[in-house]
Amino acid sequence: MPEERFTPPAGAFTRSVPIRFSHCDPAGIVYFPHYFDMFNGLIEDWYTAELKHDYAELIMGGRFGFPFVHIECDFKIPSRIGEVIDLTLLVERIGRSSLGVAIVCHRDGIERLRARMVTAMMSLETRKPEPLPPPLRAAMEAYQRRTTG
Amino acid sequence: MPEERFTPPAGAFTRSVPIRFSHCDPAGIVYFPHYFDMFNGLIEDWYTAELKHDYAELIMGGRFGFPFVHIECDFKIPSRIGEVIDLTLLVERIGRSSLGVAIVCHRDGIERLRARMVTAMMSLETRKPEPLPPPLRAAMEAYQRRTTG
Amino acid sequence: MPEERFTPPAGAFTRSVPIRFSHCDPAGIVYFPHYFDMFNGLIEDWYTAELKHDYAELIMGGRFGFPFVHIECDFKIPSRIGEVIDLTLLVERIGRSSLGVAIVCHRDGIERLRARMVTAMMSLETRKPEPLPPPLRAAMEAYQRRTTG
Amino acid sequence: MPEERFTPPAGAFTRSVPIRFSHCDPAGIVYFPHYFDMFNGLIEDWYTAELKHDYAELIMGGRFGFPFVHIECDFKIPSRIGEVIDLTLLVERIGRSSLGVAIVCHRDGIERLRARMVTAMMSLETRKPEPLPPPLRAAMEAYQRRTTG
Repeated sequence: MPEERFTPPAGAFTRSVPIRFSHCDPAGIVYFPHYFDMFNGLIEDWYTAELKHDYAELIMGGRFGFPFVHIECDFKIPSRIGEVIDLTLLVERIGRSSLGVAIVCHRDGIERLRARMVTAMMSLETRKPEPLPPPLRAAMEAYQRRTTG
Repeated sequence: MPEERFTPPAGAFTRSVPIRFSHCDPAGIVYFPHYFDMFNGLIEDWYTAELKHDYAELIMGGRFGFPFVHIECDFKIPSRIGEVIDLTLLVERIGRSSLGVAIVCHRDGIERLRARMVTAMMSLETRKPEPLPPPLRAAMEAYQRRTTG
Repeated sequence: MPEERFTPPAGAFTRSVPIRFSHCDPAGIVYFPHYFDMFNGLIEDWYTAELKHDYAELIMGGRFGFPFVHIECDFKIPSRIGEVIDLTLLVERIGRSSLGVAIVCHRDGIERLRARMVTAMMSLETRKPEPLPPPLRAAMEAYQRRTTG
Repeated sequence: MPEERFTPPAGAFTRSVPIRFSHCDPAGIVYFPHYFDMFNGLIEDWYTAELKHDYAELIMGGRFGFPFVHIECDFKIPSRIGEVIDLTLLVERIGRSSLGVAIVCHRDGIERLRARMVTAMMSLETRKPEPLPPPLRAAMEAYQRRTTG
């Protein structure tokens, strides 16, 4: 499989994650469920740092949840202890309650894995979907516009 | 979304997993990366108990690895602490080095989530794909035949 | 260090745990935080199966929590993928709100690690310690009596 | 229990950790095994960033391991999603192969938990203890001197 190059769009939200001993399995590479944990952390930081909607406050104060309804992931190049990988979040689709994002894991301009993940905003009280609040939606839309070529 | 019923085919490999405190997040439901960890455990048990190829021996003795190359998952109904869920493994496609399985999580005959996962057998020494050894492939094929209607 | 033999007292609550790929680190042995996760699962099962007080119901229905206040652990022999280890729970001390247990991990009569852990029962609403309810305390005391030589 | 104040010694190695959704349990506080995972990450960073001995290289290149032989931990104040906690590493005792450290978790000058952890350096090939290499020992001793009042 040929390597695929990846350059994040200008302004895209990217965070670096050091691969730790604890991420790796007896084969010496990242045990794959840890990637999903990293992705959740990235989304959390994106809400708080980029969209300026504090994730912890949405959960604990607002009593909202953001469960995943669909995930797809292609694993291309494994990562090893001591490497630092970059994770970039791109918005793919904003629905009434749902948000579809792509998360690209890359290093030195080469894509290592790519996930597409859809979350649905819900109330923790009623356990029903909640429409995205207009200010949150506006922040998502603005991010999508400024990171789409 | 209407509930989807699921009945495992006769002879399908199914294991029950109790949902523990440690699986659950502040919303009181399973934090999704734990499902992938459960699925890996199911595959491990399937190799050892159903295919009669000891998984630990394949890894540590044979120096083989089974990294995932593709994962898809639809989350339909969340699970909560104290519930016991059933996980059933079905073979979808057997390639030269690759194996595609579906894992269905269900309870009381209702499907809760469904994943499709593709692994590729590789050598931990050369880090190259390895063709599935004929006895392992034969065991996979036999399982697929006897669990397909 | 000489090996230490361990035989659980008659009637002691013991559960077997298979060491999985996902438990192990690049050194091929269990990554130690996983042991604490196993211990929490053991305590959970002990409440439900041995003391006949459903752990999930205590948490979600009763709105109680059992946070740890103190932990000590000696690691003697590492465990590897494919091994099955036994975990035995012994009660050391029952306080007003607190419970001190020892958890011994052993295999083939040899002790592999031993932890001493103290939890305090608390209300999730008030975040204050709660005295152990008399029926729960009675069940703990009976267990302690029947497993002490 | 009265609050205990903690001020790291000048020059002490401290890292901040944001408490994430994934760290927290249905009671809304950090599920305790995650602390041990954070501590392992802190030690890893301390080797690499403070002692200038690359941890990943010690493991994968040098084929050394640093398993824990003893752990003690007192949990004083729970931490919640959205909080940022500080972890400070202090050296307690340097043995022939072993290293004893204290890790203090604190926030706003108040101690939240304190662990004492002893690791032993070992060879992954022979599975025997290895004496600490003189340059590594010297770096540990220098750190201990400059962070002890």
